[in-house]
Amino acid sequence: MADSSKASLNSATVEGCDLRQCVEGCVRHGFAGISPWRDLVQAAGIGESARMIRDSGLEVTGLCRAGMFTAPTPAGRQAALDDNRRAVDEAVAIGANCLVLVAGGLPEGSKDLADARAQIEDGLGALLDHARPAGMPLAIEPLHPMYAADRASVNTLGQANDLCDRLGDGVGLAVDVYHLWWDPELEAQIRRAGKERILAFHVCDWLVPTRHLLTDRGMMGDGVIDIPKIRSWVEGVGYDGLYEVEIFSELDWWTRDRDEVMATVRSRIESAV
Amino acid sequence: MADSSKASLNSATVEGCDLRQCVEGCVRHGFAGISPWRDLVQAAGIGESARMIRDSGLEVTGLCRAGMFTAPTPAGRQAALDDNRRAVDEAVAIGANCLVLVAGGLPEGSKDLADARAQIEDGLGALLDHARPAGMPLAIEPLHPMYAADRASVNTLGQANDLCDRLGDGVGLAVDVYHLWWDPELEAQIRRAGKERILAFHVCDWLVPTRHLLTDRGMMGDGVIDIPKIRSWVEGVGYDGLYEVEIFSELDWWTRDRDEVMATVRSRIESAV
Repeated sequence: MADSSKASLNSATVEGCDLRQCVEGCVRHGFAGISPWRDLVQAAGIGESARMIRDSGLEVTGLCRAGMFTAPTPAGRQAALDDNRRAVDEAVAIGANCLVLVAGGLPEGSKDLADARAQIEDGLGALLDHARPAGMPLAIEPLHPMYAADRASVNTLGQANDLCDRLGDGVGLAVDVYHLWWDPELEAQIRRAGKERILAFHVCDWLVPTRHLLTDRGMMGDGVIDIPKIRSWVEGVGYDGLYEVEIFSELDWWTRDRDEVMATVRSRIESAV
Repeated sequence: MADSSKASLNSATVEGCDLRQCVEGCVRHGFAGISPWRDLVQAAGIGESARMIRDSGLEVTGLCRAGMFTAPTPAGRQAALDDNRRAVDEAVAIGANCLVLVAGGLPEGSKDLADARAQIEDGLGALLDHARPAGMPLAIEPLHPMYAADRASVNTLGQANDLCDRLGDGVGLAVDVYHLWWDPELEAQIRRAGKERILAFHVCDWLVPTRHLLTDRGMMGDGVIDIPKIRSWVEGVGYDGLYEVEIFSELDWWTRDRDEVMATVRSRIESAV
């Protein structure tokens, strides 16, 4: 189905690897891109990470992740903003296509979802003042509604498109099939987003049953998502970027040999994406 | 906050009880209503269930549940329809306000969500031909998107409102805060539904963390849902029915004494609904 030479590996898929192991694995398995988590980049050092990735020739489909804009106090929100600005600088340093943002959920002790969403929008606006001059696109990643409380109160592509409408230039979307596959409006909202806004395309699969809300994602082809259909919608509006694979799988893929995981990712892109 | 004399107990909240125990418990604890699952009604016998409930004076806020319209074969869909017709008759027999419908998810082996949704709409249409003359309102209950694959591919109130628009008279909605609280469009879609369509209002709470996708619902007040706000939206369009409490809680409430559970339900309606 899809061209597996367009694979990008999110480092969370091979949990336990350091950045060098991820980069070397991606090269060994013929991946075109990588999307490292910040802790790996920080552990290797920003400069060394940038050098390592540049030398590998890998495209950086995103730096994972910043955001988490919500907090119970102004000081907490300021700390989040400060950290997010550092994340922008890190993303610039490693030449990432975008900085992936998980919005943050309800602040500790709060049940006010509208307020959380207002905090997210304020935080995005403030971060854009730093990201625009740095030339770093921000990618809002709407998360599945089962994470609305504790991870991200941006839960549909429609809601993320509304945010983009209001925030203007410099902000777009990360479309992850795991979070969005169920949405009756998905095709329409992908069309609304268009090529310009879709900064990243993430794939994995939804397992039945799903045994854990966070760490039981499936390898493409092992679940129920019609990934080729969603890919056709995304590529139908002109997206021509890589396919980033991000699988949190405590019970399965995280327990396996990393070369087996990477080889499987490539073959499943051919057969199930 | 809310008037606990308007409590209705969904029998799944006191797992392990038979219908008589549920009815007697509801009377003992001053509930105004009950919503039994079909297996309890069938086990007691339809006639005896009807008599028992009528004698108790309890209002039946719904019969739980029918639906499950999707199947891999026409024969499977016909079997579902036959069973759903029996459910309509049972609901009539026990004097239920509505028959609660969980739509069904992807048929075994299918990844075609659009097809599943078409099957659901077809099934609803066919069932309406039986339910309308019987005078039994059908209540579509949109389920949380985390159940889109295996339980219900109707996942937002907007989608359910669209179905109601197309299906016409005799079908409405069950609004359950657990399934819908995260939706940025919830308030607007409750307004769109209006008093006439809202056939039932279900409450429980979303726990953080949620340890199991199906059986870790919280007692009102123990989670993060702003239930009074959602109740104000529902009552703001004129809903004046009971508050049905449905809590699947394998790790907590199902392990407790049923009188403790029922007493807690009533007090939490006062304090957290």
